[in-house]
Amino acid sequence: MGAYPDTLVRLIDELGRLPGVGERTAERMAFHLLRVPDAEALALADAIRAVKARVRACSVCATLTDLEVCAICEDPGRQRDLLCVVEQPNDMWALEKVGSYRGLYHVLQGRIAPLEGVGPEHLTVGRLLERVRAGGVREVILATNPNLEGDGTALYLQRSLAPLGVRTTRIAKGIPSGSTLEYASRAILADALDGRRDL
Amino acid sequence: MGAYPDTLVRLIDELGRLPGVGERTAERMAFHLLRVPDAEALALADAIRAVKARVRACSVCATLTDLEVCAICEDPGRQRDLLCVVEQPNDMWALEKVGSYRGLYHVLQGRIAPLEGVGPEHLTVGRLLERVRAGGVREVILATNPNLEGDGTALYLQRSLAPLGVRTTRIAKGIPSGSTLEYASRAILADALDGRRDL
Repeated sequence: MGAYPDTLVRLIDELGRLPGVGERTAERMAFHLLRVPDAEALALADAIRAVKARVRACSVCATLTDLEVCAICEDPGRQRDLLCVVEQPNDMWALEKVGSYRGLYHVLQGRIAPLEGVGPEHLTVGRLLERVRAGGVREVILATNPNLEGDGTALYLQRSLAPLGVRTTRIAKGIPSGSTLEYASRAILADALDGRRDL
Repeated sequence: MGAYPDTLVRLIDELGRLPGVGERTAERMAFHLLRVPDAEALALADAIRAVKARVRACSVCATLTDLEVCAICEDPGRQRDLLCVVEQPNDMWALEKVGSYRGLYHVLQGRIAPLEGVGPEHLTVGRLLERVRAGGVREVILATNPNLEGDGTALYLQRSLAPLGVRTTRIAKGIPSGSTLEYASRAILADALDGRRDL
C-alpha cells in the first residue's frame, strides 16, 4: 500500500480488525468513508466513541445499557416474578426479538468454563442469588446455551437456587423448527425424543 | 432492535452505511467494538476523524494525500517527463501496486460524463494542461477506464493535448492475462485483435 497516505493506511488497518473484514473490504470501506460527506463519516466515529463511553452493565440485570438501570428492568409492564438467565446481552436481545417473553432477565456475562479458568465467581451468579433471595421471584428460566458449558452452568445454577425454594426451569432442547429429521444430529434427535410432550 | 441501548442502535445504523454491510454484519461489528478494549475501538474512531481532517487533494497531481504535495510527486527518484492520467486515486494506487511504472501521475477526480452533467470543467483537466504547458513532460499516458466514458475522456484529453506537442498514449486494451478466449466478450476480442503486436 506504499502509495496510500499514512492516515488512510491507518484507517484501512483499523477497519481490517473488524470481524469478517479482510484487506480488500477494509480498503473499500476506507474509500467509502473518504468519499462521503464529513458529517456521515464523523457520525460513525462519534457512534463508536459514544458506545465505548456510555454503554455499561445494567446495575440490576447486568445486560449492556447506556442507562444506570436498563429499559427492561425499569419497564413497569414486565412480569417481575419471572427471571430469564442468559449468558450474554446478545442472547437476551435475541429472545427480545421473539417478543413473547414478558418477564425480566439476568445476564451472567459468560458461562462456567473450568478449562478456561472461568468459575461462578467471574460471573454475575452472586447477584442472581441476591436477586432471588430478595424475594418476589417465582420462577428462574435457565436459558444458557444448549452446549456442554451452558448445560453445566445451568446445572450449577439449578443446584445453587434449589435451597432458595424458587422454581427453576430449563429452556426446551429438541429438533429446530423448520429443519428435517433426516439431517438432525443424534444428540438433537435424542433431545427431541426425551423432551416429547402429550398432544 | 427494541432492547438494544440507544447508543448501540446508533452504532449499528452507522456501521450499516458502510458498503457491503447489512444489519446482521453491522450488529456483529458493533458487538465486537463493544467487547474490545477502549483503545482499539477508539483507534478506529480516531482513524476515521484523521482521514476526514487530513486527507485532501495533492496540490500538484490531485491524488489524495495527507501532505501538501503527495509522496510520489515529491519523490526525486520518479521519472518527471512521464505523466499517467487516471480518473481516481484508487486507479493510481492500483497501478502503484504493480510497481513497474516510475513516472508521475495526474488524477482527474472523475471522468467526462455528459449524461451526469460532468464536463471537463468539473475535473482537473485545466491543471493537467497547465502542467504540460509548463514544460518538461515528454509523454502523457491516458489511463482512464476502458469504458464508454473513460474512452471519451481519453479522446477529449488527446485532442486538448495535441496542440501542446506532447506525445499522448492510451493504455492497451485486449484480453486480460489469465483469462480464456472462450469466455471473453466480443468487444474484448475485437480489442485484442485490433491491438495485436509483432512478435
